[in-house]
Amino acid sequence: MTPDEFRALGHQLIEWVAAYRERLPTLPVLSPVQPGEVRRHFDPNPPEHGVPLASVLPQLDEAILPGITHWNHPRFFAYFPSNSMLPSVLADLVAAGLGAQGMSWQTRPAATELEEVAMEWLRQLVGLPPTFSGVIQDTASTATLVALLCARERTTGHGQVRGGLQDEAAPLTVYASEMAHSSIDKAALLAGFGRENLRLLPTDEAHALRPDALEEALRRDVAAGKRPCAIVATVGTTGTTALDPVPHIGELARAHGAWLHVDAALAGTAMACPELRWMWDGVDQADSVVWNPHKWLGIGFDCTAYHVRDPDHLVRVMSTDPSYLRTAQDGAVKNYRNWGIALGRRFRALKVWFVLSAMGVEGVRAEVRRHLALAQAFARKVDTTPGWERLAPVPLQTVAFRHRPPGLEGKAVDAHNLALAGAINASGRAYLTPAVVKGVQLLRVSVGATATTADDVAALWAQLVEEAAALPPG
Amino acid sequence: MTPDEFRALGHQLIEWVAAYRERLPTLPVLSPVQPGEVRRHFDPNPPEHGVPLASVLPQLDEAILPGITHWNHPRFFAYFPSNSMLPSVLADLVAAGLGAQGMSWQTRPAATELEEVAMEWLRQLVGLPPTFSGVIQDTASTATLVALLCARERTTGHGQVRGGLQDEAAPLTVYASEMAHSSIDKAALLAGFGRENLRLLPTDEAHALRPDALEEALRRDVAAGKRPCAIVATVGTTGTTALDPVPHIGELARAHGAWLHVDAALAGTAMACPELRWMWDGVDQADSVVWNPHKWLGIGFDCTAYHVRDPDHLVRVMSTDPSYLRTAQDGAVKNYRNWGIALGRRFRALKVWFVLSAMGVEGVRAEVRRHLALAQAFARKVDTTPGWERLAPVPLQTVAFRHRPPGLEGKAVDAHNLALAGAINASGRAYLTPAVVKGVQLLRVSVGATATTADDVAALWAQLVEEAAALPPG
Repeated sequence: MTPDEFRALGHQLIEWVAAYRERLPTLPVLSPVQPGEVRRHFDPNPPEHGVPLASVLPQLDEAILPGITHWNHPRFFAYFPSNSMLPSVLADLVAAGLGAQGMSWQTRPAATELEEVAMEWLRQLVGLPPTFSGVIQDTASTATLVALLCARERTTGHGQVRGGLQDEAAPLTVYASEMAHSSIDKAALLAGFGRENLRLLPTDEAHALRPDALEEALRRDVAAGKRPCAIVATVGTTGTTALDPVPHIGELARAHGAWLHVDAALAGTAMACPELRWMWDGVDQADSVVWNPHKWLGIGFDCTAYHVRDPDHLVRVMSTDPSYLRTAQDGAVKNYRNWGIALGRRFRALKVWFVLSAMGVEGVRAEVRRHLALAQAFARKVDTTPGWERLAPVPLQTVAFRHRPPGLEGKAVDAHNLALAGAINASGRAYLTPAVVKGVQLLRVSVGATATTADDVAALWAQLVEEAAALPPG
Repeated sequence: MTPDEFRALGHQLIEWVAAYRERLPTLPVLSPVQPGEVRRHFDPNPPEHGVPLASVLPQLDEAILPGITHWNHPRFFAYFPSNSMLPSVLADLVAAGLGAQGMSWQTRPAATELEEVAMEWLRQLVGLPPTFSGVIQDTASTATLVALLCARERTTGHGQVRGGLQDEAAPLTVYASEMAHSSIDKAALLAGFGRENLRLLPTDEAHALRPDALEEALRRDVAAGKRPCAIVATVGTTGTTALDPVPHIGELARAHGAWLHVDAALAGTAMACPELRWMWDGVDQADSVVWNPHKWLGIGFDCTAYHVRDPDHLVRVMSTDPSYLRTAQDGAVKNYRNWGIALGRRFRALKVWFVLSAMGVEGVRAEVRRHLALAQAFARKVDTTPGWERLAPVPLQTVAFRHRPPGLEGKAVDAHNLALAGAINASGRAYLTPAVVKGVQLLRVSVGATATTADDVAALWAQLVEEAAALPPG
């Protein structure tokens, strides 16, 4: 493809993306395709001969678009917000156009240094102390694995450079709440701790980790000869945005010499607002903190912010420096390849720069406050309408609730709510996520798409009431 | 940013990218900036208020571009090719514009199904048997970690869901050649095996793993009560593109019940050519195979192809399925989140589709053959010019060599070649990588940028001869 062919198709695709964003409200939020329906548009064999790219572009509308669930849709209320603001899209275009590989400072100095700037901006945005240093990871799952690996190596005195985990006499234990994200479970298993050494502890009525349960588990494990290695505190759980009590957890971590990892994947963006920072009070005691600018902040997936108190430890756990990767500047610069698992690195700092430049800190705060108010408005509807029941506090932008029509009990209520979610999602007019929390089938409305307005939230509520009434009883 | 503002800036940036690619030959290949020079263009504090994005775009030329090392430059001969062809850039624009998150089939069916198609295309492209199933990973480093985790769990009978690695009585051992990539070292350490259980084995004169050394190491470890867990065979090492003997290694792996992981990160693209597939004969015995379409194939970073023989095992090691991630289609579809570490997933299959559609299989083959011929031409110059010495066979596109002027010996030769690389790289006219292989300082010329022509290779050779003569003796 020549640069001129690129120009022609590039302009066409800029128009395509702009038009896509404009017509989002007219598209079904949840893709209506059935399994296999997208795949059958494509030849199972690779093309023997190249064709002009222009000839395949119509497939974008015919095959791809019907198979997209639209995360930037104004009525996307599922999972968590994952906004890709348009400045972020432009940054990705530039990053792809530059096509440079940032495995070392030397192989792309601008990416390393802009990432230093971006991580400093993000640190200040959420009010982390200046003692923290940051790096972009792909996802919170990966960052949490990195955190548990660092915890493992701190507890074992870098056993990885000796006999590895098998050489440790006392089993290493990891703690989190039963409401913690599945990525903690996964990270603990992948890091080799073993499920038997992972404690998923009970929570209180607000679904937050009970410090007394943590304390008791630590005491019991120490008495049994185990070594507490890492504790994960979640600020804003996936199910209900519950807030684990970080200060108390931090004290226990310090008392046991355990690593404290704070998972604020969703909530991190809200920490831009000083009036909300009480939610992670005590975060300054953390060894590592993860949150996702690719969720609510509007920086396109993927962009996870991972800040640590001891970057030297991180580098020691993650680095290998063979001769072919050494460069003359190594003493004077950061080589972010030694801050994570992957060697090669994309230029993700560009989108942090573009989005924060376009929004400013005040713009981020305004957006967070707007979404919090929308969630409160929705919660009030739930609270004040007979037959509806809220199932958790709403400190952030997620409302956990269910419909409980008179006469239904037990499993029938669960089935009714699952059917209700199914009806909403199949309608294409909105998309929300059902979840089971402590055995109860609930509905989650997660407000946070950039395009979502008060009208969209009101329309969702009206549709819920209507669909709930239309469902067959029992 | 409104869609119309996006249109205006988007068209401007399409022009910017096109113009950047056009003027690549006029730019210094290696960025000439000093540490800190990019960073000082940016405010260390995030902007309090948003500004029109148009007002920051001039920084792309003023601050960013001077800090870019140009991997798509016609005289980029460093590390390995990492081409971002223009169709790939367009695919990334579309992926960012769609801004959809592929953690489950349901959250973006098109991404999952196009990835199935893309991985099938890539499998056929390189001639892997149809018994292999594939998934896109970010990098070979991550894929290799996944492979060693899967090996660990196979050997321990899924110890992760019990007491973890610490519960295993016999130490688990991992094998690779001393020329294997540093990511294998890193993966073995992160997976918890410990450096004492990693065997980096001697190689022959062509820098390929010696099967007798592997056999002896396995025998010794078994006799000492250890359990051979994984063997990594490299097809195309980083230093010299040496080819480990896969069939023999595969036999030994089978005999010991060890996992066979084939690392063809660079060489994978060349396997598009049937006449080159002898290089990884025996790959059908592998448990996992990794190669990087984001290297030589022209698909922009990141896009690693990871194919496995037993996807059920991969899913069992990698999956956690909490209620909030379950969907109605789970039995009928692939959920690629369970094929790797990260939960969220970008839409990388788009760029595989665009690039392979534009090139066709024949186009890929033609490009590989063109680069191989250029490398051979360069190797002939080295071989036929007095004072120059080739240090490894050239099965692919990398020439390892050095200048050995009369009268220089030992460390002085090393210093001379390091200075020569420094002179070339500082000139901005070409970029190559020095490396130390078996204690010898060598120069690596890695041919493979899309824009590289015979003239570029000839110019590099002329410059090497000229700079070598100009260096002060000793």
